[in-house]
Amino acid sequence: MIAALMERIEATSPIVVGLDPKLEYIPEAVRQEAYEACGMTLEGAAKALAVFNRRIVDAVADLVPAVKLQSAMYELYGLPGLTVFKETIDYCHEKGLAVIGDVKRGDIGSTSAAYAEAHLGTVQVGEACLAPFGEDFATVNPYLGSDGIRPFIEVCRREHKGIFVLVKTSNPSSGEFQDRLIDGRPLYEWVGAQVDEWGRDCMDGDYSDVGAVVGATYPEMGRVLRGQMPHTFILVPGYGAQGATGRDLKPFFDKDGRGAIVNSSRGIIAAWKQEAYAGVGAEHFEEASRLAVQAMAKDLREALEER
Amino acid sequence: MIAALMERIEATSPIVVGLDPKLEYIPEAVRQEAYEACGMTLEGAAKALAVFNRRIVDAVADLVPAVKLQSAMYELYGLPGLTVFKETIDYCHEKGLAVIGDVKRGDIGSTSAAYAEAHLGTVQVGEACLAPFGEDFATVNPYLGSDGIRPFIEVCRREHKGIFVLVKTSNPSSGEFQDRLIDGRPLYEWVGAQVDEWGRDCMDGDYSDVGAVVGATYPEMGRVLRGQMPHTFILVPGYGAQGATGRDLKPFFDKDGRGAIVNSSRGIIAAWKQEAYAGVGAEHFEEASRLAVQAMAKDLREALEER
Repeated sequence: MIAALMERIEATSPIVVGLDPKLEYIPEAVRQEAYEACGMTLEGAAKALAVFNRRIVDAVADLVPAVKLQSAMYELYGLPGLTVFKETIDYCHEKGLAVIGDVKRGDIGSTSAAYAEAHLGTVQVGEACLAPFGEDFATVNPYLGSDGIRPFIEVCRREHKGIFVLVKTSNPSSGEFQDRLIDGRPLYEWVGAQVDEWGRDCMDGDYSDVGAVVGATYPEMGRVLRGQMPHTFILVPGYGAQGATGRDLKPFFDKDGRGAIVNSSRGIIAAWKQEAYAGVGAEHFEEASRLAVQAMAKDLREALEER
Repeated sequence: MIAALMERIEATSPIVVGLDPKLEYIPEAVRQEAYEACGMTLEGAAKALAVFNRRIVDAVADLVPAVKLQSAMYELYGLPGLTVFKETIDYCHEKGLAVIGDVKRGDIGSTSAAYAEAHLGTVQVGEACLAPFGEDFATVNPYLGSDGIRPFIEVCRREHKGIFVLVKTSNPSSGEFQDRLIDGRPLYEWVGAQVDEWGRDCMDGDYSDVGAVVGATYPEMGRVLRGQMPHTFILVPGYGAQGATGRDLKPFFDKDGRGAIVNSSRGIIAAWKQEAYAGVGAEHFEEASRLAVQAMAKDLREALEER
């Protein structure tokens, strides 16, 4: 799966659009129309999310290889929210986009197997074999160790899917446990080494289908991990609203400017609320998202060409 | 919330029934009836799960204080599965049971806030304030550090709910990262110390609403953590099918035989498949579950009285 993603990146940009909608990112008119149709209910909120996502996807689908859906933002609207989660996955697939389920799941073996099949695989019901959610990639939490990860790897191999394991997250207190030194090396490096090891059986071209999440807000750690995990593709959150710029991203890429993909959520989907795009107007919010993707692509391209 | 749970434990037993259904645990006749009604579809599987859960809940509700729903087993059946997740929560509440959402979520701050509201809190939609899933407790993964946990604590304080943070999990490879030594102490002890610290602002009687998950399969570690986290209530998975017995559980309880609750999933819900309950018959599967709860309560009571 990672080779297919890299091909799409070559043709577009190393950008993932984070479809992590909040009601406050959705223009008033879109919200009101949804509430008029479905009431001020979870269904009403979900309707607004669905319209918002579709319009953004339509506006950016030719500029990016992939989207990332943060499951929390859909769970927040209960069952109607999760219905939009599934509809958005299907719609993005229709548009030719790869879909990363940012679910950060991870559990003991048999339970991780259920999560892996739920998001990347299939389930048998009587004589039928069905795909519950059908993302292409999922993010996974490593705290439970190998037997929480291996079931995901098995599904990846069978279904030609991929995962990104949390190694160093973008948040301020990520260091609380991740940076603690074990035999002189921080925990995230031990996790990184394990991710590289897990990936050896899942090579797909130069990189493996077992990737890593490393936050853009920690470029020095990105540099170390890039060197330590030569075959591990890196999903980099934290660009834009979380503070990182194109230059901060350079260390995450390999010498050929490959090996990483950068996520931006709020900076793209709520771009219409930024001063820079105020002229676009709330009624054309998706046009601001398109401009924000183009600006981010230029920022990354220039940073990568500097090397 | 933890004080209310402890009251229910006093009146019943320190047992959580893990409603983690798999199709293979459900008697053939129940499955067939569901498939006849809804086809061999995700809806058909969900229908079977719903019937199975209700019959077990009806059979054990007077013997236990709480149930634990493993979200993976519902996500595995897609949106229909999650509909049963929600229905089961509501049904257990009708029956007076506390509900633990075993969701093991955890993310960066604003995203953790969305998970916390989704599972324990509320969301504002226009003028309406709605509860998406409405569990009483949720399990949370600590790998992202304090700013992934604090949003859950805020919701717990406001809504009088609780969390259980993963400290030492029950699976064989939990030691891979959790047991690594940092300044001479294993990572799980550092996490345990942090859990105790987080809990200080959420005291509810003798214990706090910030609890810990510590696997029954590691009783020695349970003993150390019990001493180190005197105000932390412990959710203990791993009894029965994962190998632990009543005696292994003693170290997780305080000197008064309080401070912990023990989960059993397969050992209770699939009890009808065990040789010990073969006489009950698949058609009365819930009766085997009831007998398994009674046997587990006796095992725990005898172990706790030994001290």
